[in-house]
Amino acid sequence: MPDILHRVGVVAAPDAVYTALTTIDGLTGWWTDDATGDASAGGVIRFSSIPGGLDLKVLDTRPGELVRWEVVQGPKEWIGTHIVFGLSTSGDYTIVLFKHEGWREAAEFMHHCSTKWAIYMISLKKLVETGKGDPAPHDYTISDWN
Amino acid sequence: MPDILHRVGVVAAPDAVYTALTTIDGLTGWWTDDATGDASAGGVIRFSSIPGGLDLKVLDTRPGELVRWEVVQGPKEWIGTHIVFGLSTSGDYTIVLFKHEGWREAAEFMHHCSTKWAIYMISLKKLVETGKGDPAPHDYTISDWN
Repeated sequence: MPDILHRVGVVAAPDAVYTALTTIDGLTGWWTDDATGDASAGGVIRFSSIPGGLDLKVLDTRPGELVRWEVVQGPKEWIGTHIVFGLSTSGDYTIVLFKHEGWREAAEFMHHCSTKWAIYMISLKKLVETGKGDPAPHDYTISDWN
Repeated sequence: MPDILHRVGVVAAPDAVYTALTTIDGLTGWWTDDATGDASAGGVIRFSSIPGGLDLKVLDTRPGELVRWEVVQGPKEWIGTHIVFGLSTSGDYTIVLFKHEGWREAAEFMHHCSTKWAIYMISLKKLVETGKGDPAPHDYTISDWN
């Protein structure tokens, strides 16, 4: 099955990136400003601005190492897929290895989501490095699909 | 085999995007400023700034529709892979469906290249829409791997 893959390096400690991934305050700073819920292990993160809503169950969190979510509600192509952030260090960088896995087909929507995830990974990097990301609806518009 | 996928929409006619993909002047405006060679069908495009060089053979060009390259020299993970740009229209947009296909494994380098391709697709969009892209070495630095 095809996966969406990304890699960015954040000039910060792994804990700072981990906090941005496991708190609502963090998620609203880089992904979308309407996140609510509980971003710690076992919690559910909700994004109401997406038509039909988007709910992510937090399956696994390992401080400074890994965060894994499962999509339990959202676009039909996303349901059941997993979103994984692996963290490691390389010199002054915390490396984020991102994977959105479990897509059933490499349709046009998957192409779109891949580019959009890159935009949000850059936003995550900016948030942690500077204190200010570009969460939706202030994110970069890449096409007619936003 | 895993693929890198992206989708951007460029507010311009398909021919403008096609020209940015099939001329050296276009490629130096959005990808890297050291491109030389021949970007038309049957030609070879060369990028000397990449250690060991990068040579792309232009396998197929269909005006306003498609461009396909094969990597004939470059990073070992890239050799034999294909880079494909599919063009279509949606309202005011020319949609670019990008695919870098034929990777043998989803290694960390592939994650990096996926994010970097997103950066260059945004640069392509900016070049065609505004006349100025962000080609390497003026591209956005995403990590220790540049």
